[in-house]
Amino acid sequence: MNSIIKLKSRPVGLPKVSDFEFVTEEKPVVGEGEILLKTKYVSVDPYLRGRMRDVKSYIKPFQLNEPIESGIVAEVISSKNTNFKEGDFVNGMLDWKEFQISSGNGLNKVDVNKASLSAYLGIFGLTGLTAYISLDKIADLKVGETLLVSGASGAVGSTVGQIGKIKGCHVVGIAGSDEKLALMKDKFGFDNGINYKTTDDIQKAISNACPNGVDVYYDNVGGEVLDAAMNNINKNGRVINCGAISMYNETELPIGPRYEGILVRKTVLMQGFLVRDHVKEFGPAVQQLAQWVQEGRLTYEETIVEGFENIPQAFIDLFSGKNKGKMVVKVY
Amino acid sequence: MNSIIKLKSRPVGLPKVSDFEFVTEEKPVVGEGEILLKTKYVSVDPYLRGRMRDVKSYIKPFQLNEPIESGIVAEVISSKNTNFKEGDFVNGMLDWKEFQISSGNGLNKVDVNKASLSAYLGIFGLTGLTAYISLDKIADLKVGETLLVSGASGAVGSTVGQIGKIKGCHVVGIAGSDEKLALMKDKFGFDNGINYKTTDDIQKAISNACPNGVDVYYDNVGGEVLDAAMNNINKNGRVINCGAISMYNETELPIGPRYEGILVRKTVLMQGFLVRDHVKEFGPAVQQLAQWVQEGRLTYEETIVEGFENIPQAFIDLFSGKNKGKMVVKVY
Repeated sequence: MNSIIKLKSRPVGLPKVSDFEFVTEEKPVVGEGEILLKTKYVSVDPYLRGRMRDVKSYIKPFQLNEPIESGIVAEVISSKNTNFKEGDFVNGMLDWKEFQISSGNGLNKVDVNKASLSAYLGIFGLTGLTAYISLDKIADLKVGETLLVSGASGAVGSTVGQIGKIKGCHVVGIAGSDEKLALMKDKFGFDNGINYKTTDDIQKAISNACPNGVDVYYDNVGGEVLDAAMNNINKNGRVINCGAISMYNETELPIGPRYEGILVRKTVLMQGFLVRDHVKEFGPAVQQLAQWVQEGRLTYEETIVEGFENIPQAFIDLFSGKNKGKMVVKVY
Repeated sequence: MNSIIKLKSRPVGLPKVSDFEFVTEEKPVVGEGEILLKTKYVSVDPYLRGRMRDVKSYIKPFQLNEPIESGIVAEVISSKNTNFKEGDFVNGMLDWKEFQISSGNGLNKVDVNKASLSAYLGIFGLTGLTAYISLDKIADLKVGETLLVSGASGAVGSTVGQIGKIKGCHVVGIAGSDEKLALMKDKFGFDNGINYKTTDDIQKAISNACPNGVDVYYDNVGGEVLDAAMNNINKNGRVINCGAISMYNETELPIGPRYEGILVRKTVLMQGFLVRDHVKEFGPAVQQLAQWVQEGRLTYEETIVEGFENIPQAFIDLFSGKNKGKMVVKVY
C-alpha cells in the first residue's frame, strides 16, 4: 500500500496536523515511459505555508484534497523510461507520497557518492541555491561591509552568513536561542549573534553588534526584526527580502512603520527574491557551493526527522524554530 | 542693501512663514578670486523640508539663524575670478540671498541662448536629471509596460511620464486636481490620470487605469498612494522611491501596511534615489534631455512666483500642490 498526505483544510494561523489528511491507496504501477519512485527525503520549507492559502502568487496554491508537493529526493525503483534506471536517485518537486509515478520531467539525477542524499535538499538544493544566487545578484558584498542575517541558524541564513565570511564581511546573525547563537559562531563562523527572544531592544542590540551600521540585511523573517534592521541601515544599504516567516501565519494584514522615508533618505534597495526565477544559474551556483564545501569553507547543519507520518509536524515546527539548519524528513 | 532668508525655527508639521526670518545686511564686497552674484531664480523643492529637521541625513541639516540654500540661477555682476566674467549666468547650490559672494566652486555656467534661465532649475536642472537618471538606473522600462507616476503634474513626475511615453510605456499619472489631470494628458501625453482627491478607492482606480497591472511605480508621495500602488504591482515590479511628500510634515512615525510579503511574493524591487549620488552622469543626461526637448518629445511646465519675499510661501505651497510643474521664484 501507499501513503499520501493531502491538504484537508486551509490553515488559519499556525497550521495544525489536522489540516492534513493521510490517505492510503494502492501502490501505483509504472507505465510506458514512466518511472516508479520511492521517497527517501522530504524537504519542509516555510514558503509552503503561502501555497496553502487560496491566493494568486508566484506558484499556484495547493488544492484541497490534493497532495502537497515539495522538494523530494527519491529512488527509482522501477523504470520504463530510458533516461532512468533502477537505483538512480533523483531530486525535484514531488508529491508527499511514499511511492509515486513520474514521467521524469523536471527531475535531476543526484550523485550519492558526491554528497548525502539529504544535502541535495539543503546546501546543494533550493536553500543553498537561494543563499548563493540572491547574494550574488543583489547584495554586492564588499570586503569589510557588515552583513546582518535573520533566521541565521536556519538553512538559508546559515549559508548566507558563511558566504558573507568568505566575502570578507563582518557577519552578525539573529536567531531564537543561545544554542543557535553558539552554533552560528562555532560552526558557521559568524562574528556575532543576537538572541531576539531574550533581547528587549532588538534595534539597540543590532546597533551594538554592528558598530559600523548594516550594509546588507538578509531578511528571512520580516516584521519587527526587519523594522529594527531598517533603523540601522547604512546609506546605500541593501535588503534582500527572501522570506517573512514571522508573517506567514498572520490572519490580518500586518501593519508597521513606513519605510519610504528611510528608502529615500538613505537610498536603500529592497529586493524580493525567489530562487525559482533563476533556474539558469543553478548549475554554476551548485559548482561554487560544492567547491566551497570541498575546501572546508562552507558547512551545513541538518535537522532530520524520521518517518513519513511526521512530515506535517516537521513542517509546523519550522514556525517555532525547532530546526537548526535544513529541516528534512527521512522517509526510507 | 541685501535681503537674506534664514531658518528661524525648525518647522513642526507644515512649515509656516514665521519659521523663516528676513534679515537685511550690507551688500557684500567681492574679494580677490571671488565673484559677486545677483540671484535671478530660486528653486523651491519638497526635499528642503527634510533639511529643516535636525536629523542626520544624506545632506547636513540647515542650521538655525543661518541662510537656507537651494538650487539658484544667478548673474555674475562683479568678478575677481578669472573663470567668470560680468554677465555670466551660473547655476548651483546657493543661499537664499539677493546678493552673495562665491568662490565659484560648485557653480556651472549656463547658456541663456540655449534655454530660459529657469529651465536650468527644472528640466535641465536637478529635477530633470532626477527623472532621467533614476529611470535609466532603476526602472528598466520596456515597451508595453505600465508606468504609474505619483506627483505626476509636478516637476519630476511630469518628466518621468514623458520619458515613459518615449520608451513606449502605458503611462498613468496620479495628481490632485482635474486641471492637473488635463495638463498631464494634453500637454505631457499621459495615457490616463487619477485624481486622488476625488477618488474614494485609489487602489481600485489604479487597477482600472492599469488593466495590465503596474510594472514600474515612480513614487514622489509615499503613504496611502504607495500602498495602493503596491497592491497593484506586477511580478518583478520596480518601485522608485524618489520622494515621500505626504510624509515630510508628519510629526509622528507614520505606520502602514507591511510590504515584505508583497516584496517576496512578487519579487519586487524598491530603490530609494537621490540625484546627488550620480553627479558623474549629469553631463550625458542633460544632453539627452536637451535633445528630446529640441525634438519636441519632451516639454515642461513652470509655476513662477515673483519676488524674493515670496520664497518661503512658494516653498510652503508645494505641500498643498499649488504648483504645476517646477515651482521657481523669480527674484530679478
